[in-house]
Amino acid sequence: MPESFEQMWAALAPVGRSGVGGGYFRQPFASAERECHAWFVEQCAARGLRVQSDGNGNTVGWWEHAGASGPAVLTGSHLDSVLDGGAYDGPLGVVSALAAIDLLRERGIHPTRPIGVAAFAEEEGSRFGLACLGSRLAVGSVSADQARALRDRDGVRLEDAMSAQGLEPVLGRSDWLGDVGCYLELHVEQGRDLVDRDVAVGLASSIWPHGRYRFDFDGEANHAGSTAMADRHDPMLTFAMTALAANKQARLSASAAGARATFGRLDVGPNSTNAVPSSVTAWLDARCETEEELAGLVAAIERQGLDRAARDGTTLAVTAESVSPAVLFDTDLTRRLAALGTDRPVIATAAGHDAGVLAVAGIPSAMLFVRNPTGVSHSPAEFAETADCLAGVEALADALAELAS
Amino acid sequence: MPESFEQMWAALAPVGRSGVGGGYFRQPFASAERECHAWFVEQCAARGLRVQSDGNGNTVGWWEHAGASGPAVLTGSHLDSVLDGGAYDGPLGVVSALAAIDLLRERGIHPTRPIGVAAFAEEEGSRFGLACLGSRLAVGSVSADQARALRDRDGVRLEDAMSAQGLEPVLGRSDWLGDVGCYLELHVEQGRDLVDRDVAVGLASSIWPHGRYRFDFDGEANHAGSTAMADRHDPMLTFAMTALAANKQARLSASAAGARATFGRLDVGPNSTNAVPSSVTAWLDARCETEEELAGLVAAIERQGLDRAARDGTTLAVTAESVSPAVLFDTDLTRRLAALGTDRPVIATAAGHDAGVLAVAGIPSAMLFVRNPTGVSHSPAEFAETADCLAGVEALADALAELAS
Repeated sequence: MPESFEQMWAALAPVGRSGVGGGYFRQPFASAERECHAWFVEQCAARGLRVQSDGNGNTVGWWEHAGASGPAVLTGSHLDSVLDGGAYDGPLGVVSALAAIDLLRERGIHPTRPIGVAAFAEEEGSRFGLACLGSRLAVGSVSADQARALRDRDGVRLEDAMSAQGLEPVLGRSDWLGDVGCYLELHVEQGRDLVDRDVAVGLASSIWPHGRYRFDFDGEANHAGSTAMADRHDPMLTFAMTALAANKQARLSASAAGARATFGRLDVGPNSTNAVPSSVTAWLDARCETEEELAGLVAAIERQGLDRAARDGTTLAVTAESVSPAVLFDTDLTRRLAALGTDRPVIATAAGHDAGVLAVAGIPSAMLFVRNPTGVSHSPAEFAETADCLAGVEALADALAELAS
Repeated sequence: MPESFEQMWAALAPVGRSGVGGGYFRQPFASAERECHAWFVEQCAARGLRVQSDGNGNTVGWWEHAGASGPAVLTGSHLDSVLDGGAYDGPLGVVSALAAIDLLRERGIHPTRPIGVAAFAEEEGSRFGLACLGSRLAVGSVSADQARALRDRDGVRLEDAMSAQGLEPVLGRSDWLGDVGCYLELHVEQGRDLVDRDVAVGLASSIWPHGRYRFDFDGEANHAGSTAMADRHDPMLTFAMTALAANKQARLSASAAGARATFGRLDVGPNSTNAVPSSVTAWLDARCETEEELAGLVAAIERQGLDRAARDGTTLAVTAESVSPAVLFDTDLTRRLAALGTDRPVIATAAGHDAGVLAVAGIPSAMLFVRNPTGVSHSPAEFAETADCLAGVEALADALAELAS
C-alpha cells in the first residue's frame, strides 16, 4: 500500500522549514529541495512508476499501464519554494498527482494513455532569478546559453549548482515532452477567489501578463554625518519615492481585477549605516490583465522614478529582465474538465506557472486550483484544509481518468 | 632611512582596494585590514618604536626617547574602512603620525615625554555595528560583555573573528591608556569647511551628538502577483515613506549647520522579487548640533513612520542601538595648538572619532583636519592633495613637539 495523501504530506512537512518563522526555504539544487526530490523519486518507485530525469533538473514518474500508448497525459508541479515561502505552492500539485494515481488504481481504472507526474525545477526563480526555468529549458523558450549565463546571489552558475549535487547538467530541450499530449497542474490558490465563492476547487482561465524589471538607482556614497542634506545624491530617496509611486500607480488601475506592482527585492551598496548609499538596485514585479496596461504601468513608474532622480541628482536605469505575455489556457480542455464536476468556477490568475510555459509552447494545458482560506501565498501563512486537498485529489483523478482513457 | 610619507602612502594604497570601483574594503579582523596592521607593525619596527597591543585589537608604537618620562602624548587614528570607503579616513592619521616622528627626529627634537602612535580597531563599526569599538573597550565605555554579544552579518562573534586571525582576545579596559596624558588625532576632513575657507589644516571644536536607530518594519509576506494591492501589508511602503520623512525632517532643521538623517543600510525579508516582503529592517543614522534637536528629529521620523504603518497595516518598532552625546574637545589644548600656526580655523564635525571617545573618558583630546577637495567621505571619492597631507604632517609634528617637550 503506498502512503496516503496525509502520510505523504506529513513526510514533506519538516523538510526545509525554518524553526524561527515556520517558512520554507527550498531553493533549487540545495539540500532541502534535493531532499524533497529524493523523497519524490522514492514515492515514484513505491508506486512502480518509471523515473525519468532530463538534464535540466526536471523529473517525471511514468505510469505506463499495460497496453497504454499514444500521447501522454502529464500532471504534477514543482518542489522548490520562494525564500521563506509556504508548504503548498508546488508540492501540493506533486503530492496530489501521486495520490490521484493511487485513487485511479483503487477505482480499477485502466488508462489507455501513459500518465506522467512531473516535478519541474526552479519554478519560483528564487535562486537564478528566472521563474519556470526548468520548464522553459524543457520547451526551448529559454536556451541553454541563456541559462548558462545565469548566476545565483553567490555567483554560482546553474550547471555548477547542479553538478555540486551530483547531477549531470545537459541543458536544453527535453525529448520526453514530445510524447506529452496535454498538461494539467493542480495548485493551491494564491488569492481569495474560491474563498469568496465558497467552493473547494476551481479551474484556471488564463495567466496575466507579467514582468520583472531591474531598477538601478545610482548616486554618490558619502559620509552620513558630515555631508549636508543639500550636498547629497542619495539613491535611497529616489528608490523610496519610486516604490510609493509603484504602489499608487497599481492602485489607480481602471481594470476591475486591478493591477499589481511590488518591490520585494533590494540590493543596497555599500549598505553601511554611516554612509549615504552609492547605489540601490530594486526589482519590480508587475502584473496586469492586459499587456497594454502592463506596459503603461511600468512606464508610469519609470517616469516618476526619473522625475525624482532629477531632483535627487541620482540616475535611474530600468532593465526588463523577463516579460511574459498573457497565457490563455486551452478552452476545450478546461470546458471538458469543468463539466466533470458541479460548481467548478473558471478564474484568472496573476501568478505564473509551468502550465503557462507549456501552454505557450503549444501543449494544451489546464490548471486546477484548491481553495486557500488565508488567501496568502509565498508566505508561511499559505494554507489549504485537508478536506479541500482531498477534493482536489478527487478532481484531479477524475480529470486524469477523462483525459487518459 | 625610514620610508617617506609618499612611500608609505603608496605601499598602503592597493591594500583592500576594489578593482571595480576603486573603493576600500578594510573590515576589522579580515585580510585587507590585517595586511594594513602588519604593515603598521613593520613601520613601527623600522623606526625603533616599541610595539604594544592590547586584547581589544588596538596597537600602539611607542617612541621612548632616552630620558622621556611622565604622561605620554598619544596620536594616531585607525586602519579599518567602511564598506567601499575611501583611502584617507583613518590611515591618513596613522601614516601622518609616523611621518611626524621622522620629521621631529630630522629636526633633532628630543621629546621629554613618550610619544605613542595608535591604530584603534573597528573605528567605523562596519563589521560589528558599533563605531569606535576598539577605543570604547579600551576606555571602558563599552564593557567586555557588551562586546561579546556583538555579531557580524555572518553571525561571527568579535572574539572568534580575532582568534581566527591569530589574536588573543582579552576584551576590556587597556592598562596602557593610564599613561596617556593627551590624545591628538589627525583626520581627513569629511566636509567642505576647509575648502570654503581656503586653508589646508584646521582644528576640531566638537563632535555633534549622534545615534544609530534600528527601524523594524513588519508586515505580511504574500504573492506579488495574486495578492490585490488592497489586501497587502507591505512593510516596504512603510519604510519608503519613513525614508522620505527622515530626509524632509533633517532638511527642516532650524539650526544653521543643519541636521543629518540617513537610511544607508537595509535588510529585507525574504527579499524575493515575487513576494511582498514580510519585513524591512533599516538603520537610521541621525546627527544634530544639540541633543535636544537630535531627540526631536528621531521622534518626528518615528511618528511619521508609525502613521504610515497604521495605514499600511504594518508595524514599526524603533530601537536606539547607540546614542553618543555631544563631545567638546579640550579647549585649552585646542587653543595651544591653534596658536602654533597662522590661519588654523576651529570647526565642528558631525562625524564620530576615537578622539571623541577618549575625550568623553577624560583624556584631554584634540583633532587636526586636513582639507578634502571633494568634501566627500566614506566613498572612493574621498581625497587630499599630497601638499595638504604634508602640511598636516608638519602641523602634527609641531603639535607633538609642543605637547611632548
